[in-house]
Amino acid sequence: VETYGTVPARPRTATKRREHALAQLATQHELWLATGSETGPHMIPVCYVWDGQHITMSTFEDSPTTTNIRANRTARVAIGHPDDVTMIDGSVTPIPVAEIEPDVADAYARVSHDPRVMPGLVYLRFTPRRVQVWNGFHEFTNRTVMRNGRWSV
Amino acid sequence: VETYGTVPARPRTATKRREHALAQLATQHELWLATGSETGPHMIPVCYVWDGQHITMSTFEDSPTTTNIRANRTARVAIGHPDDVTMIDGSVTPIPVAEIEPDVADAYARVSHDPRVMPGLVYLRFTPRRVQVWNGFHEFTNRTVMRNGRWSV
Repeated sequence: VETYGTVPARPRTATKRREHALAQLATQHELWLATGSETGPHMIPVCYVWDGQHITMSTFEDSPTTTNIRANRTARVAIGHPDDVTMIDGSVTPIPVAEIEPDVADAYARVSHDPRVMPGLVYLRFTPRRVQVWNGFHEFTNRTVMRNGRWSV
Repeated sequence: VETYGTVPARPRTATKRREHALAQLATQHELWLATGSETGPHMIPVCYVWDGQHITMSTFEDSPTTTNIRANRTARVAIGHPDDVTMIDGSVTPIPVAEIEPDVADAYARVSHDPRVMPGLVYLRFTPRRVQVWNGFHEFTNRTVMRNGRWSV
């Protein structure tokens, strides 16, 4: 996306970046989830659905990701490609399968395995606190479109 | 990549997966780098080069990634797409710009900014310990192609 040695790419406006983040959240169904605790960092690819407020994912109850989240709910999520990123910091709450809302579970089952019929899984609900959008070094400035859980533009 | 409700995709052999990992390492030049310390998880997209033994990357000396690595050298690297993953666990050593090998620095400058001419950067050298390759749930079994730093096939 960047252009070296010629005319630099023009950074998008804040409004365009917010719109891009919301479009990515709504249309993509896979992300990278980074978690960590005293045992060190972990990262997994995982399917998700977005309901306008939260990202709902699922992984195994006995996985390093779930273990990390039970120790430290802070997580970082990346949607997109390394040169076209929507990066989100927030916190994760595990939700037992028996407690998930049916409409969210139905939506999730359309993009992934269905934890309601597959043993050993737990839902993970991620609440965004900060959202950053950039597609190259030229967009590092002004890349934050949500701060403290509020869209800033 | 997975097929639901019809014939499941056939998992690749261990040899094919190792070859895929080596091809990805050699031909891709961007990855996701997850690090963590007591302050929590972090993840960045970053450019890299592979010399057959190590991944060399670069980021800012005062960044959360470098701070994490100085506290905990364990890291996890993902190359590819969430549904076609080369996932690598290993450790990272910071290398000051003045100490980088010229051939590695030249290779890095061809895929990214050049830390030798841009202030505030440090090289990061990642040594793989475990490599896992899978392109869907049907490939979870037998996904480990390097263990303890040795290609297992």
